Amino acid sequence: MLGLPQLLPTATLGSVLVSGVGASNGLGAAIARRFAAGGYPVVIAGRNEQKLNATASELAAAGAMVKQIVGDASISTDAARFVQAAESLAPLAVAVHNAGSNRPTPFLELSQTEFETHWREHVLGGFQLGQAALPTLLKRCSGTVIFTGASGSLRGKARYAPFAVAKAGLRALAQSLAREFGPQGIHIGHVIVDGGIDGERLLALRPELKMSRGEDGLLNIAAIADAYWMLHHQHRSAWTLELDLRPWMEPF
Amino acid sequence: MLGLPQLLPTATLGSVLVSGVGASNGLGAAIARRFAAGGYPVVIAGRNEQKLNATASELAAAGAMVKQIVGDASISTDAARFVQAAESLAPLAVAVHNAGSNRPTPFLELSQTEFETHWREHVLGGFQLGQAALPTLLKRCSGTVIFTGASGSLRGKARYAPFAVAKAGLRALAQSLAREFGPQGIHIGHVIVDGGIDGERLLALRPELKMSRGEDGLLNIAAIADAYWMLHHQHRSAWTLELDLRPWMEPF
Amino acid sequence: MLGLPQLLPTATLGSVLVSGVGASNGLGAAIARRFAAGGYPVVIAGRNEQKLNATASELAAAGAMVKQIVGDASISTDAARFVQAAESLAPLAVAVHNAGSNRPTPFLELSQTEFETHWREHVLGGFQLGQAALPTLLKRCSGTVIFTGASGSLRGKARYAPFAVAKAGLRALAQSLAREFGPQGIHIGHVIVDGGIDGERLLALRPELKMSRGEDGLLNIAAIADAYWMLHHQHRSAWTLELDLRPWMEPF
Amino acid sequence: MLGLPQLLPTATLGSVLVSGVGASNGLGAAIARRFAAGGYPVVIAGRNEQKLNATASELAAAGAMVKQIVGDASISTDAARFVQAAESLAPLAVAVHNAGSNRPTPFLELSQTEFETHWREHVLGGFQLGQAALPTLLKRCSGTVIFTGASGSLRGKARYAPFAVAKAGLRALAQSLAREFGPQGIHIGHVIVDGGIDGERLLALRPELKMSRGEDGLLNIAAIADAYWMLHHQHRSAWTLELDLRPWMEPF
Repeated sequence: MLGLPQLLPTATLGSVLVSGVGASNGLGAAIARRFAAGGYPVVIAGRNEQKLNATASELAAAGAMVKQIVGDASISTDAARFVQAAESLAPLAVAVHNAGSNRPTPFLELSQTEFETHWREHVLGGFQLGQAALPTLLKRCSGTVIFTGASGSLRGKARYAPFAVAKAGLRALAQSLAREFGPQGIHIGHVIVDGGIDGERLLALRPELKMSRGEDGLLNIAAIADAYWMLHHQHRSAWTLELDLRPWMEPF
Repeated sequence: MLGLPQLLPTATLGSVLVSGVGASNGLGAAIARRFAAGGYPVVIAGRNEQKLNATASELAAAGAMVKQIVGDASISTDAARFVQAAESLAPLAVAVHNAGSNRPTPFLELSQTEFETHWREHVLGGFQLGQAALPTLLKRCSGTVIFTGASGSLRGKARYAPFAVAKAGLRALAQSLAREFGPQGIHIGHVIVDGGIDGERLLALRPELKMSRGEDGLLNIAAIADAYWMLHHQHRSAWTLELDLRPWMEPF
Repeated sequence: MLGLPQLLPTATLGSVLVSGVGASNGLGAAIARRFAAGGYPVVIAGRNEQKLNATASELAAAGAMVKQIVGDASISTDAARFVQAAESLAPLAVAVHNAGSNRPTPFLELSQTEFETHWREHVLGGFQLGQAALPTLLKRCSGTVIFTGASGSLRGKARYAPFAVAKAGLRALAQSLAREFGPQGIHIGHVIVDGGIDGERLLALRPELKMSRGEDGLLNIAAIADAYWMLHHQHRSAWTLELDLRPWMEPF
Repeated sequence: MLGLPQLLPTATLGSVLVSGVGASNGLGAAIARRFAAGGYPVVIAGRNEQKLNATASELAAAGAMVKQIVGDASISTDAARFVQAAESLAPLAVAVHNAGSNRPTPFLELSQTEFETHWREHVLGGFQLGQAALPTLLKRCSGTVIFTGASGSLRGKARYAPFAVAKAGLRALAQSLAREFGPQGIHIGHVIVDGGIDGERLLALRPELKMSRGEDGLLNIAAIADAYWMLHHQHRSAWTLELDLRPWMEPF
């Protein structure tokens, strides 16, 4: 239907940095895979060298231009190394912070360390990645920064204080960055993943869940990754700051 | 990059019904255009016969399979006719309710009629379209219903009571339908358009706005329409109920 | 402890109008009782003459200065009569709109009438009461208008579309009025009652609920009414637009 | 009006602990003053010994039973000392965490220390105070814990990331605690102070603001404190988790 006008994509080309990557059947890997499939060189960063190497090998075998880098996004020097690695492939276009740990604990049994760890992974990681990536993106007045949220971003459940505090904080960070850097040409996105993810973390902890939820009852990691891809490719006259994603039969 | 797996789209094929269509440079027309460009037969419905005919002609000239139908979505028999018209082209896959009037008025100067009119256009229109479209969609346990929201969906501004009441009500309707019909296979979407739309309505009322906002400072209607297209094509394991859309430099 | 400074209350004295009053063990009656106990003359308005008379008699027997008036707040002439009745006792200080019907129905079994009725009771009632009361309050640049909300104000549950649409709309109305009339000295309040009310309506429909919820497991109507009293008596430098109320053991 | 029934207050008597207290014209002091005026012995805690001593002297001169204790609520041993000090006066009934620093900074000029400091003061302080106070409150299955929020609790503004992240996190903490400890008899409250406070901090930084805002244009600290008092005295069948407070003419 050639006569019907189509909007030209205005996405910035360049490299894609995904932090919080683990096994190849996890969400971080799926996001990297999605952008690689679209022709972007990718850097995957995470703390587990073994998982990261295996994921990188798999992506490379499928044809991706990929580089792995071990480190912790919540450490400023590591976040800076992540961005440098991406820039060594191509000017940075997209930075994704994808942290996910989450476990219920009665409040009075929480240690300060456990409470702080969630905050470091989710919020400080997002903060450092933002501080490392934004100066580079601002040079071209374009690019995208995306944070992974959860239902805890919107609601503090009983016994989930560390997770909810971290995810609500990360959401506030996304809002604040969107209001500061949107008018400078940077797209900030916040993806609320509401439901169980059909990926390494959940399947390791609760393997029975997949069967009990039925077909498409857990979030497909490639389907989630499509939302990150879509966010980066939105026209800048109609950017999304926040969207939710949940399985069709998820109660909410 | 053939080796990288891509998620197969799971969208239901079939006809697309867009109610609230006016001139060809309005949002309703853009949504119809987007789906037509993707190969879907479309029915456009609206109250202004002249505008509707002109829009239909333009879409047809560009190669769309299109049918126009004059009527008011808030009248149940009209909503039923809209759905029948769509079904005459192909089984219904998507129904969009896109109402938009909005004007500030001091609360004490509002007539009951003005207050009710907003509710009828936005909420009762969504209600009737839902009641007409859902039985058909449920037969195939699939399909998408999308409502157009606005910043007023989230926030009642001074002197905007009729609009905010209607849009907040429409949002609650979308939530309620999502919780009832999601588990029956129907995707409900709610698009929050936050900012001025670069389309017929705004440009007629405030032509100076486009210039003053600068490049991409108003929402491009084709860019908005892309979000409706994307919603229908999401994998059902990762459906979005709500997303916001706003220009990159919009204060919010 | 005389030496400790206390804030002087700045509440406007005058008459209190409560619409949506039924039996004396309902919320509307409790709100009237609370203000009467504080020395305010009250007008109670509702559609059921018999219930209204019984409630008025009981309040009067307890020493209240009370007047009852039969009518429907969603009809502008009735709303005007309510305000006149209040003004005949003393200048209007407080107007409360307290509508409550709520029943789950599958969406496709709803009639347009049922859908509209909720909107009329909750939203149009609030609109008309606002239009009738505000001009009078504005003359003294003070006074309070309070709307009764519910958990449905924040969230559209499956099969509760008419209620959620109405309550979300009423909340948007409260926000819009607060932003328009706050700076003119009028306090707008929105009380989110989240849980079962230990009053006539619920006890008639589900008498077993009180026992099953245990002590203080349903909202005590006098405790709810205290929140309305408190709202009117807040200092204007620290007004509350919205608060929630729920039983201590309510899951939410 | 003796014949009209009044609800008996069900508040737990005992000591009141307020952390984050500074000068006597600050919010923390006002909260302590309010409870002292109602007959509660109070412990005021803060980091500035000089200010704390002056505030304690003033409260004592006015007749309050008051004890001051220097320390930092975000340090677990200090939080424990605060609770012990309160318990030495009477069984703990109320614990308030009231932290407030807030300053705009461009995101890229923020140090990690500045970012973390906000989180420690607001969130970690609330966490530690909660961990110290809750075991004591749980022994009596009653009592109240209140956190001070702000407009930043709901919305991340440009250049306010540290504050918004902290306040959004604190709000999530309040929600999580409410859902875990409400059913155990503990009332959690979250007070959203939306506007400038007519107190030491703001008046030191922006003395001109008070004049420019006009009468009651800044939040009166005693009026804010009334909300804390009210929260503790709510009947447990109708507890408020969250309320907002703002000046009558505040734009929002």
